[in-house]
Amino acid sequence: VPRSPVEFWFDFGSSYAYFASLEIEALAAKHGRAVVWRPFMLGAAFAVTGAMGLSRTPLKREYAGHDWRRIGRLRGVPYNPSRTHPPIALPTMRAFYALDRRDPAAAVRFAKAAFEAAYVAGRDVGDLAVVLELSGLSAEAVSDPEIKTLAKARSDEAIGRGVFGSPWFFVDGEPFWGWDRLPMIDDWLTRGGW
Amino acid sequence: VPRSPVEFWFDFGSSYAYFASLEIEALAAKHGRAVVWRPFMLGAAFAVTGAMGLSRTPLKREYAGHDWRRIGRLRGVPYNPSRTHPPIALPTMRAFYALDRRDPAAAVRFAKAAFEAAYVAGRDVGDLAVVLELSGLSAEAVSDPEIKTLAKARSDEAIGRGVFGSPWFFVDGEPFWGWDRLPMIDDWLTRGGW
Repeated sequence: VPRSPVEFWFDFGSSYAYFASLEIEALAAKHGRAVVWRPFMLGAAFAVTGAMGLSRTPLKREYAGHDWRRIGRLRGVPYNPSRTHPPIALPTMRAFYALDRRDPAAAVRFAKAAFEAAYVAGRDVGDLAVVLELSGLSAEAVSDPEIKTLAKARSDEAIGRGVFGSPWFFVDGEPFWGWDRLPMIDDWLTRGGW
Repeated sequence: VPRSPVEFWFDFGSSYAYFASLEIEALAAKHGRAVVWRPFMLGAAFAVTGAMGLSRTPLKREYAGHDWRRIGRLRGVPYNPSRTHPPIALPTMRAFYALDRRDPAAAVRFAKAAFEAAYVAGRDVGDLAVVLELSGLSAEAVSDPEIKTLAKARSDEAIGRGVFGSPWFFVDGEPFWGWDRLPMIDDWLTRGGW
């Protein structure tokens, strides 16, 4: 019986999603699972929960900034967000789904390139010009009404399934919120749940 | 050189703090550390961050309820909150500091009894009568103006030090938010930071 892929839901503007993007494929592969990448707009979930972005919230903002640098050192990976972080990553998400419609593997390659641009090279992936350069798509392709509808439908799907944070994972339907739950996902996959 | 204790800041109304209360002493002891227990009113921090309690937030509420039951099963510990969870644990906090002023060990015993009452016996620790029974204190002792001032000062101290969630830990000044960061604290104590 083929085992269902791990669903990885994320917003490109989420630093915790960047760290998760560097780990989730190896974790899933360890258990014979693939990963389905699903960008969505976290702001759409915030409209339901009343939450604000970390970077706009007193106290949380300072802790999160400290925590992201600490996680970078812990994992030995670069953490160099743009000065305008977090981006509003709407064109990034649309470009992903424009690629995904024809070639899911190309969409995943783009997602990795976008995370690297945003968190290693310190570029603004909310900037359409950057997104076009990284994706090789035209502005028309990214703003295609069908793609806009498809991208919005993914954010709606996320909220409909209870997703309110980034990164978010579904493992055989079980929800996990946060980079810090990767060890729990490992445990869940090892034991088949509990 | 004596090593500084791990500071454990929490709100008695926080289920994640309950789970942390069952683990933090063994974790600290493994590294030759004591634990200082510091209840505070999470609502005071929410007034700064604009956050709402998990149990009042759409989507988060459903996830958290699921997650608490899942953690209970994972750790093999009871999880049976009162029907009125979460309590507004102001009398609980005040009783803690009334005891702590004279006998810190008695305050910790009370804190454990209060967590057990709230999350195993399903009692409302926001109810003064329950708090008096568990603490052995009089209503006068709990509502002593000096105690009220001391208890409020602890919440103010928490916010002044950047605390916005429960449970929260300081390890040699380093802040950690959440039950799910206990493994990171273990790592931090093992390596002396990174």
